[in-house]
Amino acid sequence: MSYADLSSAECSTLLDEQKRAYAAWKAKDLSLNMARGKPSSAQLDLSAPMLNVLNAASDLQAADGTDCRNYGVGVGIREARELMATMLDDEADRVIVGGESSLNLMYDAIARNWAFGTQGCTPWGKLDTVKWICPVPGYDRHFSITELFGIEMINVALNEDGPDMDAVEQLAADESVKGIWCVPTYSNPSGCTYSDEVVERLANMKAADDFRIFWDNAYCVHHLSSDPAEQEHVADIARACAAAGNPNRAYKFASTSKITFPGAGIAAMASSEANIAEITKLMNVQIIGHDKLNQLRHVRFLHDAEGIAEHMAKHAALLRPKFDLVEETLSRELEGTGCTWTHPRGGYFVTFTGPQGTAKRIVELAREAGVTLTGAGAPFPYHKDPNDAVIRIAPSLPPVEELAQALEVFCCCTKIAVLEKLV
Amino acid sequence: MSYADLSSAECSTLLDEQKRAYAAWKAKDLSLNMARGKPSSAQLDLSAPMLNVLNAASDLQAADGTDCRNYGVGVGIREARELMATMLDDEADRVIVGGESSLNLMYDAIARNWAFGTQGCTPWGKLDTVKWICPVPGYDRHFSITELFGIEMINVALNEDGPDMDAVEQLAADESVKGIWCVPTYSNPSGCTYSDEVVERLANMKAADDFRIFWDNAYCVHHLSSDPAEQEHVADIARACAAAGNPNRAYKFASTSKITFPGAGIAAMASSEANIAEITKLMNVQIIGHDKLNQLRHVRFLHDAEGIAEHMAKHAALLRPKFDLVEETLSRELEGTGCTWTHPRGGYFVTFTGPQGTAKRIVELAREAGVTLTGAGAPFPYHKDPNDAVIRIAPSLPPVEELAQALEVFCCCTKIAVLEKLV
Repeated sequence: MSYADLSSAECSTLLDEQKRAYAAWKAKDLSLNMARGKPSSAQLDLSAPMLNVLNAASDLQAADGTDCRNYGVGVGIREARELMATMLDDEADRVIVGGESSLNLMYDAIARNWAFGTQGCTPWGKLDTVKWICPVPGYDRHFSITELFGIEMINVALNEDGPDMDAVEQLAADESVKGIWCVPTYSNPSGCTYSDEVVERLANMKAADDFRIFWDNAYCVHHLSSDPAEQEHVADIARACAAAGNPNRAYKFASTSKITFPGAGIAAMASSEANIAEITKLMNVQIIGHDKLNQLRHVRFLHDAEGIAEHMAKHAALLRPKFDLVEETLSRELEGTGCTWTHPRGGYFVTFTGPQGTAKRIVELAREAGVTLTGAGAPFPYHKDPNDAVIRIAPSLPPVEELAQALEVFCCCTKIAVLEKLV
Repeated sequence: MSYADLSSAECSTLLDEQKRAYAAWKAKDLSLNMARGKPSSAQLDLSAPMLNVLNAASDLQAADGTDCRNYGVGVGIREARELMATMLDDEADRVIVGGESSLNLMYDAIARNWAFGTQGCTPWGKLDTVKWICPVPGYDRHFSITELFGIEMINVALNEDGPDMDAVEQLAADESVKGIWCVPTYSNPSGCTYSDEVVERLANMKAADDFRIFWDNAYCVHHLSSDPAEQEHVADIARACAAAGNPNRAYKFASTSKITFPGAGIAAMASSEANIAEITKLMNVQIIGHDKLNQLRHVRFLHDAEGIAEHMAKHAALLRPKFDLVEETLSRELEGTGCTWTHPRGGYFVTFTGPQGTAKRIVELAREAGVTLTGAGAPFPYHKDPNDAVIRIAPSLPPVEELAQALEVFCCCTKIAVLEKLV
């Protein structure tokens, strides 16, 4: 059955039915949240032992003898750089470990290029126009940064294998285009992973000398399955850029926010030797050093790539049933509505696409029934979804029972919005 | 006896004597460091129990129920704001708790005003010239920030009661002067504390609307004595600015770097309601939240102003003998040399002033004898001490026995440099 094939009367009947169901949901006075990509309490509990790793009796020296309690080591202690290098698919020498937030590292990278320029180029803040390529749907907090700096954001479609590279190549050829936001593995929110061809084309395309790929590999080890055959891995953009003769083009970012604690993790970036030298010099003016005890705590808890993988398998065990529930519920409830959604193998989100002009209505209906969704439009620059069709579903935070309810409400709201269009 | 009254022959004899002593020091192959204001290991040990405060069994919720492990609360958890408000002499509502570094908060404050302007004023980065008032001697890392942004730094003398306010008032009247660096309590490196009159004049003077006092109260609770009569407290600049009708003029900063761990403390800033609202809005784009577990750890370890004072008394007990040793050694060894030095009641430094043209020579001689001092010129913008006379002595890091040696070497080098000028 497809809703589009129903008569107006049949639609009215269905709509009345859904409105009765909706009224019943509303009467339950729910307060559920599917808005943000936050780990659940159960996931956070997985890292509780990390809080025992350092105590008053611990050796608080790094391997090279650095007293992690005291000032210094702006780029991070060696073993933390080595740990984060495994996530960043790079060498420890080209890794800087920062504070708790990779978003902050990205913001700072833009702020530095804004004030000082990079590799001898004009500071972006001195240019009349700075433009930025934004694959959509994308991460709202990325877009907020470029918006704050007054950078003109240009949408390109994010396909199943990454951004529409024909469009990207055409845009990047413009000297005033200075960057692109990328979440290359299990993208936020579509869940797609960039193909090797996309990585190659990003590395090789013509672009300004100070064009920078902001490679936010936030979900690089965040698989939903511990079976390697079910896991996706993006090709390394740094190696591709170096091979293409554009070694300084990419800044790579990762963090432990969704490995240990979002509120108290460690973040890191990697880039070419020249970029890291430039950033280190500027960062040494900004800060004496980031929290080295937290770096040490992470190293002694996670150890290495294998330790991270083992730990991530525990997250996957908690997350997978939630993603399965999304898939089951939407498949069952939204058959024939014309809605589609993604089927990610990792990350934190499912992207839902309804018929044109329904997203705001669905979010509004859900809110009124006590279910908070990410705002419609959020995955787009300036919060403008040209089709008003996309909603980011974030199933990680609520317990399964609450998620089940929230999804039922979501589906009910979706059917109402779809039917309202047809009646 | 004053060296200036000696004959040239007497000077030569003395110089030879000191050179023999110097050779003996050199033969010891020392490696001592009086360069940076780092707490000693013994001081860091005082905060070891803080590492036991949070463990796998702890309640990790803030008082308002916030799960400190998860994302959010960009301005810091309430109880951390309250704790830092006691140091910042302000209300918790006007306090933002950041990451581990107050220097980073200062850098970011300049970077924000550079890119976006403050309270509707033109972004500093769009102005042809931005100037800054730098009381000297001052903190080298402050000057590095303003230098990096290409801000023109203008020296004014730092007297015993704070900066030369006649000079400051004259400079501040210039619209292109946008700020002043202040370390108002136990200043780095002179150890002076600003008088009430200086605070009043800073608050009331004519200045640009976006002129900002960077009030780095780094040593606000860092007394060398636990006897209140021996402690210095600066008047609150925020209250003075508000009373003067310039409520947005001051940004206040403090941190626990020299209370708990320099490498893993918490930093905070306070300002007017309007400034905090502006900064919060911008900071929420930069970062989702700082390390709330470390905030919680600090609150549960230090508790409140009284807890901080008790803890600081333990630091004082370790630091006082070192400052006493500086005073004793310099008094004994440098009598008649024409050298002077400060006699701080708190903070981390003693400022030494030799005859004109001796500072670089003393630092060089000390380095060759294995004693690292802060570079001559460091306490001045552009590392240029116009008289080549000032050296920052940082006695906190070395154990007392090593400090005693380092000071003997320092005095020997000083006598050589002074006598070389006289011969």
